[in-house]
This record gives sequence, C-alpha cells and structure tokens, in this order.
Amino acid sequence: MQQEEVEIEMKNGITAPKGFKAAGIHCGIKKSKKDLALIYSTSPATAAAVFTLNKVQAAPVLICKEYLLRAKKHRAIIVNSGNANACTGEQGYKDSLLMAEKTAEALKIKPEEVFVSSTGVIGETLPMNIITNGISKIVNFLEEDDNFSAAEAIMTTDTFVKAASESFDINGKVVTIGGIAKGSGMIHPNMATMLAFVTTDAAIEKESFQTIIKDVTDKTFNKIVVDGDTSTNDMVIALANGESGIDNIKPDTAEYDLFSEKLFNVLKKLSIDIVKDGEGATKLVEINVEGALSDQDAEKAARTVALSPLVKTAIHGEDANWGRIIAAVGYSGIDFDPAKFEIIINGIPILKQNYTVTLPIIEANKTLKSKEIKLVLKLNCGNGESTLWTCDFSEEYVKINGSYRT
Amino acid sequence: MQQEEVEIEMKNGITAPKGFKAAGIHCGIKKSKKDLALIYSTSPATAAAVFTLNKVQAAPVLICKEYLLRAKKHRAIIVNSGNANACTGEQGYKDSLLMAEKTAEALKIKPEEVFVSSTGVIGETLPMNIITNGISKIVNFLEEDDNFSAAEAIMTTDTFVKAASESFDINGKVVTIGGIAKGSGMIHPNMATMLAFVTTDAAIEKESFQTIIKDVTDKTFNKIVVDGDTSTNDMVIALANGESGIDNIKPDTAEYDLFSEKLFNVLKKLSIDIVKDGEGATKLVEINVEGALSDQDAEKAARTVALSPLVKTAIHGEDANWGRIIAAVGYSGIDFDPAKFEIIINGIPILKQNYTVTLPIIEANKTLKSKEIKLVLKLNCGNGESTLWTCDFSEEYVKINGSYRT
Repeated sequence: MQQEEVEIEMKNGITAPKGFKAAGIHCGIKKSKKDLALIYSTSPATAAAVFTLNKVQAAPVLICKEYLLRAKKHRAIIVNSGNANACTGEQGYKDSLLMAEKTAEALKIKPEEVFVSSTGVIGETLPMNIITNGISKIVNFLEEDDNFSAAEAIMTTDTFVKAASESFDINGKVVTIGGIAKGSGMIHPNMATMLAFVTTDAAIEKESFQTIIKDVTDKTFNKIVVDGDTSTNDMVIALANGESGIDNIKPDTAEYDLFSEKLFNVLKKLSIDIVKDGEGATKLVEINVEGALSDQDAEKAARTVALSPLVKTAIHGEDANWGRIIAAVGYSGIDFDPAKFEIIINGIPILKQNYTVTLPIIEANKTLKSKEIKLVLKLNCGNGESTLWTCDFSEEYVKINGSYRT
Repeated sequence: MQQEEVEIEMKNGITAPKGFKAAGIHCGIKKSKKDLALIYSTSPATAAAVFTLNKVQAAPVLICKEYLLRAKKHRAIIVNSGNANACTGEQGYKDSLLMAEKTAEALKIKPEEVFVSSTGVIGETLPMNIITNGISKIVNFLEEDDNFSAAEAIMTTDTFVKAASESFDINGKVVTIGGIAKGSGMIHPNMATMLAFVTTDAAIEKESFQTIIKDVTDKTFNKIVVDGDTSTNDMVIALANGESGIDNIKPDTAEYDLFSEKLFNVLKKLSIDIVKDGEGATKLVEINVEGALSDQDAEKAARTVALSPLVKTAIHGEDANWGRIIAAVGYSGIDFDPAKFEIIINGIPILKQNYTVTLPIIEANKTLKSKEIKLVLKLNCGNGESTLWTCDFSEEYVKINGSYRT
C-alpha cells in the first residue's frame, strides 16, 4: 500500500527534538541508493533499547547490548543498510566494533557511546573499506533539520520512508519525541529486519527510560504481524538528551503517563507504516480480540488470525468469510466456545452467537470495502483482550483463494 | 506444480484392493464439477481414522468419531465437496446424520457403518435436497475399477487427482493398499481441508489398524507443511476388509512391518502430491534436520524453515541464501549453536561449521536448479532428527524477495 503522502517533512522525525542531528548518504554498499545513516545527539543522552529474541544474533546486536551496559550516556547511532553483518562470526564482531570506533573517532566521542546497526543480506562480511570511508564522510553531512536522509538510508525493501514526531508541553516546556523505522516489503517477513530509532529531548533516567521503551514497544512494534517473528538484527534504540530543559520524568507521575502516551503515538504511527508497506498490502487491518479467557489467549487468537493467509486473502477479496476467521481461532490453541463467537467489522455485526449470520453475504462483504478495516472478535468467555495490526494478501495468491466461493 | 503424468489409472487407488467399489458424480453443490463421492466395501471392514485437532470441529468429524466407536465394522464413506458443513450448529449435525442415513438406506446397511465427510466453504448449511437426491443416484454408479471419479469428486481447489496404491505378497497372497487424497491449491493452507481415504484388502484387528494408521499418518500427512495447521474438517479414514484372504496382521510381526512400510509408501505418495499441488509451487522440497537435541527440536526447526516465506522464495529464485535458513532455525525456539550449523543441498555441502561457506554463491545456487530439492540441515548438537516435505513460493511475492540480493 503506497502511502498517500510520501513527503515526510525534513525535520518530522529524529531531528525534531532539540539537540539531535542526522545524516544519510550513499557510501557504496548498495549500487546507488543511500546506505549509511548517522544519528547524533549534541549532548550526552540516556539510552534505552529492545533487541531481537532470535537465537542467532547479529554482531551489531551483541555490541549494542554490551555498550548499553558499559556506558552511562550515549551520543550516536551508526547504521548501514545492504548488509546485515549477521552470521559472520569473529570477523563480523570485529567489523561492528570498528564501525563504532571509526564513528567515535570522527565525532570525537568514545566508541561505547556509539550504537551500531546493520540490515540487509545475511552471511556476508561488511565491505569495511567502503564503510570506514563512508563514516569519515557522513559526519560532515550531519544536519539539525534533515531527518529524511537518515530515514531513507536505513531502508532495504521498504517502498517509503517511515518517520514521525510529536511535541507536547511539560510544565511550560516543549518536549518532542521523534522516530524513524524500517520494515520490509514482505507479506510475512519473519526474517526481515525491523529497525527503529527514537530520539527525544525529554530528560529521564536510564531505568525508567528502559521500562517505558520496553512497554511501548510491546504495544506497538510487537503488535504488528511484521514483528511476529524476530530477525537476527531487529532493534529499537532510543536516546533522550534532556535538551528540552524539563526535570527528569519520574515513574508514577502525570508527566510519565503523558510521555508514554506520546511515545505510543509516535511508535504506533511507525508500526502502522511498516504494516502498510507490507508487500502487496492494500488494506490496513486492526484486529481486536475481546472476551478471551486471558490477554495471552486474546493475543494468541489475534496473531493466528493475522497470520492466516486465508483470512488475509478473504479480506483482500472483500469476502466476509467469517468461517475462515473462526477456524483460525480454532487452531490458535486457545480454549473458547465456538458457538459464542461474534464478529464485528467496521462497527457492523456480521456474526452473532450460535452461528447466527446477521447480514446477507453481499451486505456483509460491503463492510470490507474501506482501506482501513477494524475487525472485532468477541469470544464472550472472559475479559482477556488484545489489539494488533496487520495487512491483507493480494496478487496471484488471491486469484485462487479470493474466488474460492464462486 | 502440475503433475507430469496426470493420468491416474482408473483402478490405481481406493478400488485397487479386492472388494471395494467407488463412484464420483456431480450432484449440484458445485456448478458443474463432480461434488459427491462414495466408497463402498462389499464386505464388512475394520476401520481406523485420524481427525483434525482444531477446536472447531465440523459436524461430519463429530459423527465419524461417534460411528467409529459405535460400530465394530464399517462399509462406506460418503463425501461431498463444495460445502464443509462446518460452523453450522445443530442443523449441520442433523444434515450429516441424514447423509449417513440416506447412504445406509440406499446401500441397505446401517447408518453407523457409514462415514461422512465434507469439504468446501465454512458456515453455510448443506443443500440437503440436492445431496439426498445425489446419494440415491450415486449408488448406481459404484464400480470396481473406477477410482478416478471418486478421487475427482473430493477435490476443491486441487489441480490434479491424487491417488496411489501398492500390492505386495503376504504368505503367498496378494495384499493391496489404495488411497485417495485432497489437499488444496494454497501456499500455506492453514484452513484448507486435507482429506484422505485408504482402502485395503488386508485383514487386521481394529486396535492394531488404528495404531498403524495413526503412526503412518504422523510420518506422512503430518509431515507436510500443508498439514502444519489443521482445518475443521481434516480426516484420514481407512477401511480394511480382509478380502485378500490373509490371516489377521498382528503387531510385532514381519507382516505388520511390511504392511506399515507399504502403507507409508502409499500415504507418502499422496502427501507429496498434496505438496506438489501447493499454489504456485514449482519445486518439491524435502527438509531433513539432523543432530538436534531431540526429535521434537528437529521437527520444530524443520517446520519453521518449511513455513518461512523467505526460505521458500529463495529456493524458488534458486538463491542458496543460507542466512535465511539459519535465521529461521534461530527463531524456531530450539536450542542450538549457530556456529555448528551445516547445510547440504542435493548432496552438496554449501555451509560447514563456523559459518564456513564452501562454494562461491554462483556454484551454491546451482544446487537449487532441480525440481526436487533435498535440504539437509545438520545442527551437530545431538541425535534428534526429522523429515518433512514442503514446496517453494513463486509469483509476485518472489519478484521482491527473490531478487533481494541483486
């Protein structure tokens, strides 16, 4: 699904908060597209991060984890696209270290203040000459109002740049959160790298920042099907430099809740952009499961429905084929009573309890006409609930499945 | 993948064993294709069956389970395609009962001697007038040497008929096992019905037959990715009528092992046909995982690789992208040491331990040229192993992912 407005304001992302600069250039890993990004905080920033749970972890993931613990404050994030530096053994580890060192050298900071990130092909070593040359060049391109170049340089199969920011007031001071992300152009990218970088001029202590980043990531990036399985390189890194001038945001305060809410907005926007950029996607689907025995069950059911190619093709074909939905929940592994199942699409009930169909098929199908679909599944057996976002399936796959009824 | 030889001998399936007749006709559920099948044993037969584990179970599944327990011997299987009679509540249950009754009436046997099976759209009640008319007609078409019509009548989105049989000698007597199956034309048909019907003129007691059918199903139909998730209607039903004249096959005998082996051959052939008929499939892929900590771990790893769209598109694009394979194992949830991972494609090692690439990419890619691919994944950390069959991904999906490297 092409974004209708592809123009991202140059500052409407990681450079929106005060005291952040960014750059994105072509250094030569890819043929001609931008492939190196740098994010820089002009003052020391508190960092928080969430990493892939894949058993196979790329070298940059290992180094970021180490540096997150080793340094109290951080200053920069260097990212290359076109090569993931994963499954590259000792050499890969050394290469990621060198990326941090060279970036630190050029910025006159310490290596452990630099986070390193890579995305692209697995199993090939990085072209380090090209990258170290690129690093010495990119520092000269750092700009306070250019978010776009960095957001572009982290893309792989993405078809549009993903950036967002929000500004709000805390005790009379303007606080801003910005972020960029990359997903991938694939339907069910169980291996595609999901990268997100977040900047803010809020002041917050490391432990609180980690909690907040983890919580909001769980409600956003971890609730899109693109993120259902984790790659060797997935990471979310966030920097808070305090340049807004506010006091530290403490847990259990109104400021903390406000910051969480605004962070949620920014990360949700990026998450949804990743879903919209799913290969061949033409519809954004929000799935709400309600009334499960637990939130975990609701999550399981929602995820199974979101992953079901048959549900996704039916949605694409605007066929309100509720049987595919109930059957997907049936094999999700949760306990429920199929006869109590209810389905509401975009506010219109199409299935009530006891398999009662409330609308003729042709009317039910109309509920799927819009580009954004809200699918509510009521299990009516408890209070568990979960929301996640996914997209439809289109193309050849649909030629067979979408027309199965006719 | 179109079968190269579409011609199935008329008798080369469920009518190959002695004392079985079959028929397949168009009764009117579908517009013009055959949609009703009947399998009939001229003498009482011992039955065994395996059913879907889906929480949502279609009416025919419930009735077959009941009849399997209630009757000692069985005589017939009536199957309709075009409508799954699933999620149809009380009415659906009554309709399936009626299908058995009408079949029993026409064949002058008892209703509980008849198994009932349905496949097609979920959530719509059966057109019972059409079906009961069809049943009274189909009994007149029963033939001893027509397997093809029944095999055709159980198809939904299948593109070719799936049938197989094997004959072998037990104590100087010829024993035959025959089978037909339907899968679906979908890439990852987590809801498509998998039906298989097996006939044999062997003599075997009910308990032993159930054990053997369950064991062999686990090694065949449960080892294809098509069967990774179970539909509301999945079933395997087998009838053994003893017409070969052999003595009962007993457990722990050479005859038992021979029968198991031949049954495996028949069901493996049907399973592989289902995989080959995967939508857009151009390659059949056998995945062997060796050296896992347990067989369960090996199975998990193999299944995750088989389900990975990125691995499947790479195989389609003849891109020996081993990074995608190792990463899929990485998120499969099993414990292993990525540095010990080895990959062999069609007998040629492409990755040795410590991420050692043994061939230039262009040479490694050649291992994927053939239509049948054998992928051996060695984890080198235990003795667990598993084999399963899957297919590649083609089409639009591949246009993006298959050319990711270039």
